[in-house]
Amino acid sequence: MLLLDGKVVRKNIAKTLEENFKKFSRRATLAIVQIGDLAPSNAYIKQKKLFGESIGVVVKHLKLLADSLESDIVGEIQKLNTDESVQGIIVQLPLPKNINISNVLNSVNKDKDVDGLTATNFRKLAEGVSGYFIPATARGVCELLEYYKVPIAGERVVVVGRSMLVGKPTALALLLRGATVTITHSQTKNLAEVTRLADILIVAIGKPRFITDEYVSQNQVVVDVGINDISGEKFDEEIPKRHLVGDIDFDSVKNTVRALSPVPGGVGPMTVLALFENLFDVCRKSQKS
Amino acid sequence: MLLLDGKVVRKNIAKTLEENFKKFSRRATLAIVQIGDLAPSNAYIKQKKLFGESIGVVVKHLKLLADSLESDIVGEIQKLNTDESVQGIIVQLPLPKNINISNVLNSVNKDKDVDGLTATNFRKLAEGVSGYFIPATARGVCELLEYYKVPIAGERVVVVGRSMLVGKPTALALLLRGATVTITHSQTKNLAEVTRLADILIVAIGKPRFITDEYVSQNQVVVDVGINDISGEKFDEEIPKRHLVGDIDFDSVKNTVRALSPVPGGVGPMTVLALFENLFDVCRKSQKS
Repeated sequence: MLLLDGKVVRKNIAKTLEENFKKFSRRATLAIVQIGDLAPSNAYIKQKKLFGESIGVVVKHLKLLADSLESDIVGEIQKLNTDESVQGIIVQLPLPKNINISNVLNSVNKDKDVDGLTATNFRKLAEGVSGYFIPATARGVCELLEYYKVPIAGERVVVVGRSMLVGKPTALALLLRGATVTITHSQTKNLAEVTRLADILIVAIGKPRFITDEYVSQNQVVVDVGINDISGEKFDEEIPKRHLVGDIDFDSVKNTVRALSPVPGGVGPMTVLALFENLFDVCRKSQKS
Repeated sequence: MLLLDGKVVRKNIAKTLEENFKKFSRRATLAIVQIGDLAPSNAYIKQKKLFGESIGVVVKHLKLLADSLESDIVGEIQKLNTDESVQGIIVQLPLPKNINISNVLNSVNKDKDVDGLTATNFRKLAEGVSGYFIPATARGVCELLEYYKVPIAGERVVVVGRSMLVGKPTALALLLRGATVTITHSQTKNLAEVTRLADILIVAIGKPRFITDEYVSQNQVVVDVGINDISGEKFDEEIPKRHLVGDIDFDSVKNTVRALSPVPGGVGPMTVLALFENLFDVCRKSQKS
């Protein structure tokens, strides 16, 4: 079985990315807007910060109170929209429940929307227009497959999960690359029958170790986008790695499938990488114009 | 074989729709913006006008020259955006090649976008947020299925075609209704193998009589969204019906499948109906507020 090792891939690509960032006249800056103080969000932001700084990018972390008004959050984002020292802006999700997520995400300037979550960028992804941002997870999944030379065009891809952050954009990104894409979800009948037909299986449902051997088949390439905390404990800071598992039961499927991405160390590092690749695309564009 | 007869369905629903429109204090108005003078566009606009007027709606037809500037087209749309006597606006497609279709479509006020083609409405469809417009063809397909009590949730839907106007929005609308959706296209390998697995097969590829008996299976519900002019002639006005065929070879599949929509007389009338249902939704909303 071939391990789709996101850490290795990222390390290899990061070097080139760092060199490319150095070519610009000034350091690139990513702004991360966080509302509240959730432990997993803190951990994700820390990872983005560490990786960004390792390749020479300035990562600005703007932390707002959990009870901030929507108008105040949008106001802060608008300041970043016009701040010429900031090339990319992301809003760390999830948001507090009383905040309208669409309003906040759509307030990000589409040209700085390196998470690809504004309506304009989502539609561009669906249209297949190049030069716009693809959501980081979707881009990360595609690049992981491409690095290991997994053919995509004409292949049968089955995506399990239909979320706006992962399932749908990943399905659209792979459709754009020529795959025949099936989107499955909680209402799908005989799910295992459908998933077994895939050449490439992408799982993003947030159910720990849900996909066992009966869902997969030989010669399949399987990508695990899930990341679940199974500790049942509360952590103030980072969740220890031993508590994190994917949506796929790694040990159950590893002797059947042809290739498999682990959790942690698969899609996670690729998502962080893709975010900074999107940032690089902004910098390159503004350099040109 | 059950005929999915769009004309019959529309006739039945139109009566109620007409009565509902009458309840408003003033007549509803739809504006159709056409750029140029293509014969098929003229024919489609005529159909919308005839149907709209038959249910008591005012249909304003604004015809601009084929060589209009993009800024002039957008200017006209912006006037309609703020015209309180107009509740819905559609731009008849296709546009002349030198015009940026995204810019023109996105200039329509999202609350009057009864074709559901602005980026905001497309994202809302993908999100599954209700209260926004679903593109008329996608809504028409769903209502045709629902009228004939074809179950959708949990069923396997295969959509042939991935266009922004039909394939993708129809796939998203059926996904939202709980179907397991596969999107196929010109790069799909062994297409017939994939289409035969569908419970519901939706075809929108613009290839006359492409889908023959080998692509279908028993118990399948098959919906033909294609409309192709096979005359090879030039018409100034409407294309005679005998020259119009669907993407499905009706005679080839009719003895195999369980249900089938004809062309003309299947999805076409439902698309026109859905447009005015979207218009009705605007009127109802504005009445409430």
